[in-house]
Amino acid sequence: MVRAEIITIGDEILYGQILDTNTQWISLELDKIGIKTIRKSSVGDQKDEIVQILVEAQKRADIVFITGGLGPTKDDLTKKILADFFACPLALHPDALQDVTDFFAKRGRELSELNRDQALLPTKCTFIPNKQGTAPAMWFNELETVWVSMPGVPFEMKSIMETEVLPRIKEFFKLPVIVHQLRKVVGIGESYLSDLIQDWELQLPSHLKLAYLPSLGIVKLRLTGFGKDEDHLNADIEAEFEKVMPLIKSYVFGRERDELAAVVGQILMDQHSTLAVAESCTGGYLAHQFTQYAGSSAYFQGGVISYANDVKIKQLGVDELIIKNEGAVSESCVKAMAEGARKHLGTTFALATSGIAGPDGGTKDKPVGTIWIALAHPDGVIARKLTQGGTRMQNIHLSSLTAINLLRRYLLNDLAE
Amino acid sequence: MVRAEIITIGDEILYGQILDTNTQWISLELDKIGIKTIRKSSVGDQKDEIVQILVEAQKRADIVFITGGLGPTKDDLTKKILADFFACPLALHPDALQDVTDFFAKRGRELSELNRDQALLPTKCTFIPNKQGTAPAMWFNELETVWVSMPGVPFEMKSIMETEVLPRIKEFFKLPVIVHQLRKVVGIGESYLSDLIQDWELQLPSHLKLAYLPSLGIVKLRLTGFGKDEDHLNADIEAEFEKVMPLIKSYVFGRERDELAAVVGQILMDQHSTLAVAESCTGGYLAHQFTQYAGSSAYFQGGVISYANDVKIKQLGVDELIIKNEGAVSESCVKAMAEGARKHLGTTFALATSGIAGPDGGTKDKPVGTIWIALAHPDGVIARKLTQGGTRMQNIHLSSLTAINLLRRYLLNDLAE
Repeated sequence: MVRAEIITIGDEILYGQILDTNTQWISLELDKIGIKTIRKSSVGDQKDEIVQILVEAQKRADIVFITGGLGPTKDDLTKKILADFFACPLALHPDALQDVTDFFAKRGRELSELNRDQALLPTKCTFIPNKQGTAPAMWFNELETVWVSMPGVPFEMKSIMETEVLPRIKEFFKLPVIVHQLRKVVGIGESYLSDLIQDWELQLPSHLKLAYLPSLGIVKLRLTGFGKDEDHLNADIEAEFEKVMPLIKSYVFGRERDELAAVVGQILMDQHSTLAVAESCTGGYLAHQFTQYAGSSAYFQGGVISYANDVKIKQLGVDELIIKNEGAVSESCVKAMAEGARKHLGTTFALATSGIAGPDGGTKDKPVGTIWIALAHPDGVIARKLTQGGTRMQNIHLSSLTAINLLRRYLLNDLAE
Repeated sequence: MVRAEIITIGDEILYGQILDTNTQWISLELDKIGIKTIRKSSVGDQKDEIVQILVEAQKRADIVFITGGLGPTKDDLTKKILADFFACPLALHPDALQDVTDFFAKRGRELSELNRDQALLPTKCTFIPNKQGTAPAMWFNELETVWVSMPGVPFEMKSIMETEVLPRIKEFFKLPVIVHQLRKVVGIGESYLSDLIQDWELQLPSHLKLAYLPSLGIVKLRLTGFGKDEDHLNADIEAEFEKVMPLIKSYVFGRERDELAAVVGQILMDQHSTLAVAESCTGGYLAHQFTQYAGSSAYFQGGVISYANDVKIKQLGVDELIIKNEGAVSESCVKAMAEGARKHLGTTFALATSGIAGPDGGTKDKPVGTIWIALAHPDGVIARKLTQGGTRMQNIHLSSLTAINLLRRYLLNDLAE
């Protein structure tokens, strides 16, 4: 297996002024063609630090990607260091000079001394053109390792990788095949999920590897397959996921890039149904989960954010007595909110939330994190009580996810009532 | 100077499934207290790779931060490797066990075997509680280096750093005095701001350093002071910011941890005023800007998310003819929405949005990014037209910020009409 290392050079990333997104992008591209990233590193604009990481990377990797440090200003050192490292001089490269001259001519500007120097390249490198900027990229095959040095500006780097570097890599290395698939799970924590599927996990064939990728309220199960044939590996992975599905069917809402609210929105659209919301504690966040995705206006009609009790009464028709006798955070109130939203907005379904998101407002009977959610549907209304223990934002996020998941399971006839 | 190294453990970051934002955050926090990050690395869930980076980091750094690899599942290895590396066993830590037991008890759930194992810690570590999750953090002072191991879930890591680790670091190392202050600015871009204040920037004394920290719609101006006395540095910084205030007064909405919607909420509360929203294109996100903060129920009454035209008409009283003749994305419609929300929800103020967030739905006259915002106030209603050029989420975010800023400037009598 070809082993890759990715190095970012520059103080601005090292000190945190810039978020490095290049490294993630490169590793995803490598993963697609079966190259295994084994290390990512970020070092500053310091010669000794840069040389040190080059020495280390040479021992570990078959191919090393270096981004950054190629600009025309004084603190950009990469090119000189690479020339020293490979024991060769810098020389004006005619194609590089032509490119940088054209670049400035096209923009009606003269070539400065500093910019002319961008055509100085280590003589041992293969020149790789940069159609988007002035700093060329370089390819070295030295010290039994391939080295690719590229500018750090993301759109320049991506263009160079896609048009020049990835095709060269495929030609140069004999690549194995790696395939990943995700199943996305909601409504069960990582550790419970792990208990539930441990027998399945233990029986996985050795060429498939399982990983849990958790985030707040959602766990991604990833199977990675190593082999020679992409179609076979995908079939193997599909078959393994099929085996475990009976255990986790109710929790799995999608694959790869599927997002929960978008998946539910798609089901609503497929069923020609519409949705409204009535939000108290989630305060607009539940609606935003749907409306953040393009196309949501096809099923999402709108909603009422009823923070104040008056709004619950006037806009949603909640009975004043319910609030007086049972409080706004109660099963009766959240059901009335959902029914009111469904009726007043004329939708097939309505979701409602009412609870204490915190950090203040809790009581002994109704501590912070007590949140009621409800779903009004054509045949009635159902409610669930949650007891969260997180921060305000976590409670808002998790109760929104749980409400959306309640609707998902209702739509799939998968509610054990 | 104290030298820090930051290590991320986990295949999901190494292979690019997750974008690592922890490392940037940590390096920014270290920068604030005068610790220099010298290397950032990312390795996979492989024992030999993890041990190798620990050996390397020990030679270079005074303090090593390790995130990731602490979850309860089988692919999380960090804890066992650290125990081996420091030549000590894992043992059940009573405080850690108490914390994880409480964590599950609070949620009314039983402690599984897997979760109980989260309280197993290397005996040489100092236990650092994790109030947000089940995997505790660890502090080691071994091999002449400080080691801090934390879970990789960003909100857990940040909470642990802020409440436990940063205070410990300040106590442990003798750090130079560095003072930072922010002024937060909205409604002006970074380059315009930079032009506006360049004379002031040039006259800054040499012990104060200015940085621009831009994010979508907001720029933070940071002055950093280097010296020996915190009070003196703070006074110097205050004095310099006072000098530039006449130029930027209208744009500055706060300091340090001030958030725009919370600042506006505080002004509303001080003036005993209330707020409602009527949202079309922002779809709940504008309301969420207010309701994400505790205490917002004191002034935020609620709102109507009127995605469908029917909801604009029925819930907000928008005249059907306005929508027919001028469209929902129009000055008349957004003004009617704001006035309707103010009237129906009985508030002092109401904000409304109506526009084309994209990526679809644009026309020649009203391209994607055309967004109207309005403010209904006791003396009338005002509207503004925005022409954004971003993604759907950027358009939603920027138009929400602009609406909130319109209210802010109205409340401060700072609107040039």
